[in-house]
Amino acid sequence: MDSVDVKFVLVETSHPGNIGGAARAMKNMCLDQLALVNPNRYPSADATSRASGADDILMNAGIHETVDQALEGCAFVMGTSARPRGLYIPELTPKQCAERILAESTQGKVAVLFGREDSGLTNGELDRCNALMRIPTSQEYSSLNLAAAVQVLSYELMIQRGEAPLQRPIGEGERRHPLANADEMEGLFNHIEESIIATGFLDPENPRQVMRRLRRLFNRADVDRNEVNILRGILTSVQETVRKV
Amino acid sequence: MDSVDVKFVLVETSHPGNIGGAARAMKNMCLDQLALVNPNRYPSADATSRASGADDILMNAGIHETVDQALEGCAFVMGTSARPRGLYIPELTPKQCAERILAESTQGKVAVLFGREDSGLTNGELDRCNALMRIPTSQEYSSLNLAAAVQVLSYELMIQRGEAPLQRPIGEGERRHPLANADEMEGLFNHIEESIIATGFLDPENPRQVMRRLRRLFNRADVDRNEVNILRGILTSVQETVRKV
Repeated sequence: MDSVDVKFVLVETSHPGNIGGAARAMKNMCLDQLALVNPNRYPSADATSRASGADDILMNAGIHETVDQALEGCAFVMGTSARPRGLYIPELTPKQCAERILAESTQGKVAVLFGREDSGLTNGELDRCNALMRIPTSQEYSSLNLAAAVQVLSYELMIQRGEAPLQRPIGEGERRHPLANADEMEGLFNHIEESIIATGFLDPENPRQVMRRLRRLFNRADVDRNEVNILRGILTSVQETVRKV
Repeated sequence: MDSVDVKFVLVETSHPGNIGGAARAMKNMCLDQLALVNPNRYPSADATSRASGADDILMNAGIHETVDQALEGCAFVMGTSARPRGLYIPELTPKQCAERILAESTQGKVAVLFGREDSGLTNGELDRCNALMRIPTSQEYSSLNLAAAVQVLSYELMIQRGEAPLQRPIGEGERRHPLANADEMEGLFNHIEESIIATGFLDPENPRQVMRRLRRLFNRADVDRNEVNILRGILTSVQETVRKV
């Protein structure tokens, strides 16, 4: 997947571990433009350690004295905020943000400002923003960790870009055998029925709902061909036992 | 917003900071049930520091020796995986997971297993899972930080609670009996194993993958309590037949 042309700008970050965590979250989601404005301690072993394999993102990160420098050339600026703000700036959910960023990034350079851990963005910084992201949270405990906020937006950007570059569609599982077809499932159900009549579990004169319930159970499981073979192998071993009685 | 009745289980976490980060992510998203299986270093100042204001989640976290203990009484278990697995377990996106967890939590106790930072969940642990979450990521760099993965699922649980009132999974139909819990499923698997050793199908000296495949098949099917009773009735009839030989 191509990276999106969007720059994440971390403003006056106190804890270098958060810078590393943000870099890792970005790289996981195919994003690569990080900028740091006046970080408190940087470079730092904590940042490198939390970045894990994403130290290339740190290596290439721009480091700036001011927000203005970091935003140079940007056409669209998204802010982030943990709390409702007094002045009117449109507030978007992370999903809406991701959609907006993807749309704007085809028109010009886009930046997202992430504020200080303790106090967020100043009013002056918010005045630079075209829109604000607010992540839905608990009312009582609303302040996300900085790297966690970066993770949420990065994740939504990945989802909204769609067609995630998986080796195979998610939800497919690693199904190495084809699903059993209808004939094979009927063969299995007949085999089950014969076997449990043979052991005396099922009374053919009074079958109740047993076979219907077993059908529903196995149909729900999306049984594959190999599994049908295992189950029928078990049933054959039961029938051979019955013959010896 | 009410909390969801779901327990997040962190298995053999190496870095206590990740435990704190997970607790904070959960509390931000109105989740409060954390359990730790055999954590490497805990309690720890790193955990408390990263938890920030979420130390109540840490205080109330259950600490267990084994995954089995942590899962006691749980009817539905979701696993998490960074990579495709060899055997078939349904893989869901975080959004699908959140929908599923919300639906299942109205029926019985739900747990989510988060594996070790370096090696994830073992095959034995995956065998306990009804479904797996996989977060879409970059192909080249797919392993999320543990607390970041907790954040993504917690966020989707928040979003899905906001957007959709609790409802059954689509296509579920009416489930008239509660899901079998972990103990009942273990009882079933032990009963299957004894029975197919008795009929000669399973060679205990050379078990191959038979029990693992059967576990995955039945876990996938979300077996309810009534179905466990039917299956165990069949197995008892098989064992009685063997005794007559």
